[in-house]
Amino acid sequence: MAEPIFKRLCLIGIGLIGSSIALRARRDGLAKTIVVQTRRKETLEKAKARNLGDVYTDSIAEAVKDADCVILCVPVGAFAQVGERMNGHLADDAIVTDVGSVKRSVINQLKPHIPSKVHLVPGHPIAGTEYSGPEAGFATLFDQRWCLLTPEPNTDKAAVEKITRLWKALGSLVDVMDPDHHDRVLAVVSHIPHLIAYNIVGTASDLEEITESEVIKFSASGFRDFTRIAASDPVMWRDVFLHNRDAVLEMLGRFSEDLSALQRAIRWGDGDLLFEHFTKTRDIRSGIIEAGQETAVPNFGRDVVEDE
Amino acid sequence: MAEPIFKRLCLIGIGLIGSSIALRARRDGLAKTIVVQTRRKETLEKAKARNLGDVYTDSIAEAVKDADCVILCVPVGAFAQVGERMNGHLADDAIVTDVGSVKRSVINQLKPHIPSKVHLVPGHPIAGTEYSGPEAGFATLFDQRWCLLTPEPNTDKAAVEKITRLWKALGSLVDVMDPDHHDRVLAVVSHIPHLIAYNIVGTASDLEEITESEVIKFSASGFRDFTRIAASDPVMWRDVFLHNRDAVLEMLGRFSEDLSALQRAIRWGDGDLLFEHFTKTRDIRSGIIEAGQETAVPNFGRDVVEDE
Repeated sequence: MAEPIFKRLCLIGIGLIGSSIALRARRDGLAKTIVVQTRRKETLEKAKARNLGDVYTDSIAEAVKDADCVILCVPVGAFAQVGERMNGHLADDAIVTDVGSVKRSVINQLKPHIPSKVHLVPGHPIAGTEYSGPEAGFATLFDQRWCLLTPEPNTDKAAVEKITRLWKALGSLVDVMDPDHHDRVLAVVSHIPHLIAYNIVGTASDLEEITESEVIKFSASGFRDFTRIAASDPVMWRDVFLHNRDAVLEMLGRFSEDLSALQRAIRWGDGDLLFEHFTKTRDIRSGIIEAGQETAVPNFGRDVVEDE
Repeated sequence: MAEPIFKRLCLIGIGLIGSSIALRARRDGLAKTIVVQTRRKETLEKAKARNLGDVYTDSIAEAVKDADCVILCVPVGAFAQVGERMNGHLADDAIVTDVGSVKRSVINQLKPHIPSKVHLVPGHPIAGTEYSGPEAGFATLFDQRWCLLTPEPNTDKAAVEKITRLWKALGSLVDVMDPDHHDRVLAVVSHIPHLIAYNIVGTASDLEEITESEVIKFSASGFRDFTRIAASDPVMWRDVFLHNRDAVLEMLGRFSEDLSALQRAIRWGDGDLLFEHFTKTRDIRSGIIEAGQETAVPNFGRDVVEDE
């Protein structure tokens, strides 16, 4: 086992992401001591039961004391409050980082609470599942997935380097990106897909003439893929949309424009336009498979093929 | 091996669905002779290479001759033409069925070409993958998936019974449904999900400021799920939209209305509305998993979790 990267790694929040960091850090000795903080007693008990940390507390002030690295693993809407509670308790030269899906808002919320001797290195691991809570984490969640860091230009280089080392040790590939660009990229590859998945599942459940039983029985025709995404954590996603409003609304505008063009082609029977559109979207999947970000097995491999 | 259900089973079209029927029928001896027809020489060669049938031909007239069951496995837009070419060559008491994703249009296209002594029992297996062609088929594709039959009320009961037996033997669960109701149910559980998946993948590829490489690298954040569906066969899906126009346009209207409500909630910061919507969509996934139509493994099981 290698030398630990941090002496005292503090996790604020212990859901799917926090618990996955804890399990990998523990497995590979990435920190001498792991401190687990969460507000709810029940969640803290679950974290204890899975042996996710060395120290457990519901107090943010206590948790961050003497930590050389603090990772905020809470919904994006909670950052201002967490910042306030850390304020005055962070050690000199500590690094504060996070896993939030929106980066400009996280910076705006945290910055007023970060003393000049503390380094802020915002981060976003592009990994997850449809399950949430400390029971949902697993040590290999970040393997081969990208983690984006969005430090400001004047950030201490050594701090950025250390967080890069951490994410690589957690299994990730690491890129540095401007926070506003991050928010626009994620709006289109993540936030809009989640919004339209939540939406189609809602539309289908609300139909008077089609029963829920029919939607369920015949879901293998496409619908069930969307229900996975629409089963994601509601608090996390509410906060993402509220805190990445401008980029989401702009990308949604483009999505709706494009959808209107397809709708018009259907109404007027323009088969060539549909065919051309449906053909060009095939290539991007091959790219994703080649980049190691997706399986090539039919149906994601969910249907086990036993014989032919 | 049981007694064959049909003496001479004729498959018109040998793509993903046709080849999967052939492989299962062969494996379990569901037909004494399997006739494979397809227009393109190249495809017929591939079918031969996989040993999918006993007789191969590019002529529809020849293929259907003496068959007691003809299954049309071609895109929905080709049915009128196939009907015309079968006309005059079908045996008395033969059953004609199909696997098209739209049912009213299929009935309208075929009916003028079906002699009174031939039985039309339209069908639709709710199963598939993102791959197409005779190489893509496998014998277990229909296992535990629903197949919907939409015969008209005056259809010969014995014929419906025989096609029901066939689909059960292919691994399916079978339901009988009114064709118009079928088309509306499928519009919402299948056609709209495909349309919005094709659309978001198109929107993402067209952005000037975001590179394709970024879309690919960070696709694990939601986008890649949509690319699977948007990699489906373009001809098949063009035809589905053109032939289920009214139901698709109506369901798309509802989808867009609902999306506008979410968009408005984001613009005005209505977190409660978003939270409530995102919560209610979770239940339907549990229903799908309980019904055996989906896996409960995180991320569809595509990320193999080796240890913790």
